[in-house]
Amino acid sequence: MMNQEEQWLLPDGVEEVLPGRARAIEQLRRQTLDLYQRWGYELVFPPLIEFMESLLNGGGRDLERETFKITDQLTGRLMGVRADITPQVARMDAHSLRRNAPSRLCYCSSALRTRPVVAGGTRLPYQLGVELFGHAGSDSDLEVISLLLETLALSGVEQQVVLDLGHVGLFRGLLEGCDLSETEQNQLEDIYVRKARVELDSFIASHDLPAPAAKALAALPWLAGGVEVLNEARALLSHFSGALAALDELAVLADVLGARGVRLHLDLGELRGYHYHTGCVFAAYLPGESEPVAKGGRYDHIGEVFGRARPATGFSADLKMLAERAQSAALTGILAEGSLQDAAFATRVAALREQGERVVLALPGADNDPAELGCQRRLVAQADGWVVTDL
Amino acid sequence: MMNQEEQWLLPDGVEEVLPGRARAIEQLRRQTLDLYQRWGYELVFPPLIEFMESLLNGGGRDLERETFKITDQLTGRLMGVRADITPQVARMDAHSLRRNAPSRLCYCSSALRTRPVVAGGTRLPYQLGVELFGHAGSDSDLEVISLLLETLALSGVEQQVVLDLGHVGLFRGLLEGCDLSETEQNQLEDIYVRKARVELDSFIASHDLPAPAAKALAALPWLAGGVEVLNEARALLSHFSGALAALDELAVLADVLGARGVRLHLDLGELRGYHYHTGCVFAAYLPGESEPVAKGGRYDHIGEVFGRARPATGFSADLKMLAERAQSAALTGILAEGSLQDAAFATRVAALREQGERVVLALPGADNDPAELGCQRRLVAQADGWVVTDL
Repeated sequence: MMNQEEQWLLPDGVEEVLPGRARAIEQLRRQTLDLYQRWGYELVFPPLIEFMESLLNGGGRDLERETFKITDQLTGRLMGVRADITPQVARMDAHSLRRNAPSRLCYCSSALRTRPVVAGGTRLPYQLGVELFGHAGSDSDLEVISLLLETLALSGVEQQVVLDLGHVGLFRGLLEGCDLSETEQNQLEDIYVRKARVELDSFIASHDLPAPAAKALAALPWLAGGVEVLNEARALLSHFSGALAALDELAVLADVLGARGVRLHLDLGELRGYHYHTGCVFAAYLPGESEPVAKGGRYDHIGEVFGRARPATGFSADLKMLAERAQSAALTGILAEGSLQDAAFATRVAALREQGERVVLALPGADNDPAELGCQRRLVAQADGWVVTDL
Repeated sequence: MMNQEEQWLLPDGVEEVLPGRARAIEQLRRQTLDLYQRWGYELVFPPLIEFMESLLNGGGRDLERETFKITDQLTGRLMGVRADITPQVARMDAHSLRRNAPSRLCYCSSALRTRPVVAGGTRLPYQLGVELFGHAGSDSDLEVISLLLETLALSGVEQQVVLDLGHVGLFRGLLEGCDLSETEQNQLEDIYVRKARVELDSFIASHDLPAPAAKALAALPWLAGGVEVLNEARALLSHFSGALAALDELAVLADVLGARGVRLHLDLGELRGYHYHTGCVFAAYLPGESEPVAKGGRYDHIGEVFGRARPATGFSADLKMLAERAQSAALTGILAEGSLQDAAFATRVAALREQGERVVLALPGADNDPAELGCQRRLVAQADGWVVTDL
């Protein structure tokens, strides 16, 4: 048995949310879901657990490592508590909805990770996100990025945000010009994710790659900065049609977003996120924070395993993190000094609540401290009935 | 690997919620949380996982069996995914809030059970509930039961509800008159929970119990029905002061609720719920359903392990079950036939959304079927600019 001190300790990266913060989170939850509704995104609730095979779809080894596994006592099969919600929503689009028109879906639900993404981070994100299925191209990328920026505007941080833009197609386009096995490709991808320069140089030196590919692969991870890097990249990637197409897509986005005054940071070697991304990827950073406040990108092949590949893009954010800067209004209320056993009192209290008032009952014998109860007025019995007065 | 057919199978008792139902659930979620706010209940988000010892506090073996266990990779300690939220909220009251005034807290979050409560039931309730700490007595019991009935009114089922009322103090009061070991008491409690008549008779015959206690223990599980059972019980329990006090509490509740026209069913041998209940217990049933739509009761000792025992009562319900009868309004919207790359179009779309309109972009080359997209009007370019017309 634990002692009293330990009994209430929470595991690292696991937080409880008390009333003041909970109010701010709930308010932002409603505002964002209402925003998504106005943009045509329909709310879904994917299940908290699924069989592992479904849950990991496309997510690769990282997602598997982040997922808590549990055994289904009904079947003996391995299930997982979701660490990521995107593959679940892709399954719903491909299997359960089966629409011909584009599907716009959104969600706001808890996820769970075996370890925090950054030291001191949460293992329990309250994940908020949107997914858009059924369209490939700049229009859907732009829609989703615009909606991400609107989300940040609701939480009052859009002025400080730097939007990181990258495109997985640049790296993939370069690979097309190289004769590497799948294992070697994964190895190189892993080096890219870690931006490990020494390892990268040694990998390139030890493999027989065409000269333009070797040069471009060595330079790409360090092509980062303002829109000028797009021009630098164009020269470097001129032999690789796939990479050039990716560059064109990035240029369109940088153009439109730049014209709107969004602060952009292009990072052409970025392969952030799970294994499933295929196109433009993006992340919104706040000054001084190492974990992005929201992130997303294109993932066109995730539905294949469900028999229906649809192009797809989306983003997600931790609502708890988004709401950190939000303020919740102070509580107002009426302390009602009577008993529900008194029908006249009960009727009066019900009427006040019907008008939208917050009415807290004073319980007999309890310390009904108005400050702790968030009340500034009271309902008391007077000669002419129940009357609301200041405290 | 699974084949495509299996890939999207969900485990038994695990459901995904698609847009129509999700809209109804979200609407009821907001209505109930707003209701609880007006009654003075403050929203909290207890964490999805905790160390097992904290999670099981007071819940006994049943709760342990219902809880999925996972190992914390950071510490090697055993954690659980909550199957019940009440003990978590009790910890927050006792340890994190430490108020002197009564605490009124509410929550709406996912829980997870290893097995469904009834065959074919869910393992993933979207648990909605309230807890009131810091007051013992009929006034707080009545407040919580009244709020349960208001909750059912919001989901449109209050007319069909039968409210089951019981009191754990009746059984406990009888035990006080018997010299039984803790093991024997647990054995008897287990027989009571299952209402196993043959086992009960054999237990009573094989233990040396005082005659009035033996008689009352044998009869109590079958004292069920209208308010008349309270009088029958009074005679039977006349030797047991604790049981009589419990009976008085039930009589007050039956009186007030009966006067309001609530359909009551008294069940005096009911020990429903987790091990932690200590006083009045209640459950709301709909016709033809074996699982209650909402249930709760008093649990006065749960905070002890956190060093601060406060009297407590509350109820919980599965929001998905509550929303089953709720209808969500059909989607209305405007299909906007332009590109966000066009600034004039983007401005017009933003203005419509600002007015509260649902505006769905027609994506180039996609099958933008207005019916699938929930749109009845469209925004199109005309000679004099962007105009909204009927389809």
